[in-house]
Amino acid sequence: MSLLGAVVSDPSSDVLRTLRTVCDTRGLEDLGARLGRLSELVRWDLEEIAAAIDAVPNSGSWVQQSGHHLLRQGGKRLRPMCVALAYRLASEQDGPTVLTPAARALAVAVELVHAATLLHDDVVDLGDQRRGAPAARLLFGNAASIFAGDWLLVDALKRVRSAEVDGTLERLFDIIEEMIEAESIQLEHRNRVDLSVANYFKIVEGKTAALFRWATWAGARAGGFDAGRSDALEQYGLHLGVAFQLVDDLLDYTGDEEKTGKALFADLREGKMTHPVLVARDTDPEAAALLTELTEAGDSADAALRHALLDRLRKTGALDQTRALAAERATRAVQALADMPDCAARQALHTVALATVERER
Amino acid sequence: MSLLGAVVSDPSSDVLRTLRTVCDTRGLEDLGARLGRLSELVRWDLEEIAAAIDAVPNSGSWVQQSGHHLLRQGGKRLRPMCVALAYRLASEQDGPTVLTPAARALAVAVELVHAATLLHDDVVDLGDQRRGAPAARLLFGNAASIFAGDWLLVDALKRVRSAEVDGTLERLFDIIEEMIEAESIQLEHRNRVDLSVANYFKIVEGKTAALFRWATWAGARAGGFDAGRSDALEQYGLHLGVAFQLVDDLLDYTGDEEKTGKALFADLREGKMTHPVLVARDTDPEAAALLTELTEAGDSADAALRHALLDRLRKTGALDQTRALAAERATRAVQALADMPDCAARQALHTVALATVERER
Repeated sequence: MSLLGAVVSDPSSDVLRTLRTVCDTRGLEDLGARLGRLSELVRWDLEEIAAAIDAVPNSGSWVQQSGHHLLRQGGKRLRPMCVALAYRLASEQDGPTVLTPAARALAVAVELVHAATLLHDDVVDLGDQRRGAPAARLLFGNAASIFAGDWLLVDALKRVRSAEVDGTLERLFDIIEEMIEAESIQLEHRNRVDLSVANYFKIVEGKTAALFRWATWAGARAGGFDAGRSDALEQYGLHLGVAFQLVDDLLDYTGDEEKTGKALFADLREGKMTHPVLVARDTDPEAAALLTELTEAGDSADAALRHALLDRLRKTGALDQTRALAAERATRAVQALADMPDCAARQALHTVALATVERER
Repeated sequence: MSLLGAVVSDPSSDVLRTLRTVCDTRGLEDLGARLGRLSELVRWDLEEIAAAIDAVPNSGSWVQQSGHHLLRQGGKRLRPMCVALAYRLASEQDGPTVLTPAARALAVAVELVHAATLLHDDVVDLGDQRRGAPAARLLFGNAASIFAGDWLLVDALKRVRSAEVDGTLERLFDIIEEMIEAESIQLEHRNRVDLSVANYFKIVEGKTAALFRWATWAGARAGGFDAGRSDALEQYGLHLGVAFQLVDDLLDYTGDEEKTGKALFADLREGKMTHPVLVARDTDPEAAALLTELTEAGDSADAALRHALLDRLRKTGALDQTRALAAERATRAVQALADMPDCAARQALHTVALATVERER
């Protein structure tokens, strides 16, 4: 299946043709055509945003080099795309019109906040790989990564402040606090096989969906929607973010390491219980026993044990259930767009929701 | 010598009498009397600020518990006192008038930013003790300390935003970026015996003096000074901050561990070259050789070697030079007040500068 990432990480390549080929092969002509239209709509927005991210100042200090090392790896840039599309939807811009400086600033800011959390997460999780490259902490040390996260966070807030879009700074403060509380819940349940499904969703909604919520809300505000209509777009962001994380959970067990840029089974190695393992744990005693064994063994767990768990995740239908839930949340994201103007940006947001479920990285 | 800390960490105790006793014993009657007047002027401000810090929300998560653990230890609260005194000076409040909500919010915010940097520093430096208690990272882990720093930083920025004192948020963003760049310079020179004096001052001005600058500038703005007059008070903050750090450098070699709450020789153990060792290095080949030897040995360095270095710091006059420079910077801080209204708050700021040089913790 074509990668959403391919649309966004290299907007200058001939994305349209590539995507269509891949989609045609897999019989997903409709999504292929949709992704082509999405790419055409946002390619200039994304190039502008990429240029603005490249232009983030770099003093050459270890801290700023750490931040730029991560930013240079690109990533999917899905959060800034959400800002751009919400802005387009709210301002009914279907043409190649460039973003306003304020909308662009918000799009850059959301990516910088995301990068800041990755820098801190990699120190916390002792992550060695990020976006298919060595983590910044391996090149410049944990300390520089911590301060680089601080720097990008403050730089992002500065941009939001300067954009002067009503309510966006206050809401970002609250969103970041939600993200941090979710990090705490995750920490407190590290290696805890008994993580409840309710706490799993608290973690996902805080760590992942919260920033998507802000992206769509802030984009809508920048495009002229009032707080009420922006709240509807925020619901889109919430469901999209949850769907995105559920697929992340799946890719950790079933993804192609070449494409994801991450080693498989990383979540469990980091003591993180994700959706598929919770489903399997609650339905299959064999899976539950394997999960306990793997968690106790930690990094030294036998590869055969990991594959036995994967086998149970497949046979119990846990992976399918997680994928079905991701599809359901993507559908709810699309439903949140029901009362929106029917324009290219709305169709594009619809495509993003579909592609999020099908993504391979 | 009486401690500045005693005035501010427990404003409800009979500070005045205690201080006078200590000062009289050491023949510093004038400073003792001054500290008494300072204490009388700011005790209610400091109680209010302390109450507001105690009232920072606590969800009970590990992250928020980490933050509160540090805040509960109190510390000197010198930065919030600077906000309060600059506010009083600018608004010519000599009486027991309470702070405006905005001035109080800025005072709380500066302490939270300071606490955030301590939480990250302790992870970076693997610090075990802070304010005479176990560092938060020992109780809740490095990860919780990192996120607690993030949380307090965002909480502080939120307060500054809500205070709506013109220019204070933008300036705090810039100040935090300066602090982070200084952290980077320090990291890049860790264990580097060849740290230049120029880079030493860059580190001190960024890591320590920048936040003092903001404290006095923001307090002055909250009290009604225009940007120009606030800049003069910012100069006070700059020199005070440098003097404060120079004394910190001294206390690391000559302090009383009971009073400072920190083990001696911590700076060198953390690979940090401070002012006295740079002076000795540049004037005494024996000190330079000891410094290299101690840096190479790191944590496993022999206590005898450390004491040999301390002996050289004494005999070369390096400690005296550092103290003289601290006194000079304190004098420049006082000079920055020359054109200010002659009121109790100005006298109090004068006292703070004098006491900073004499402090024992």
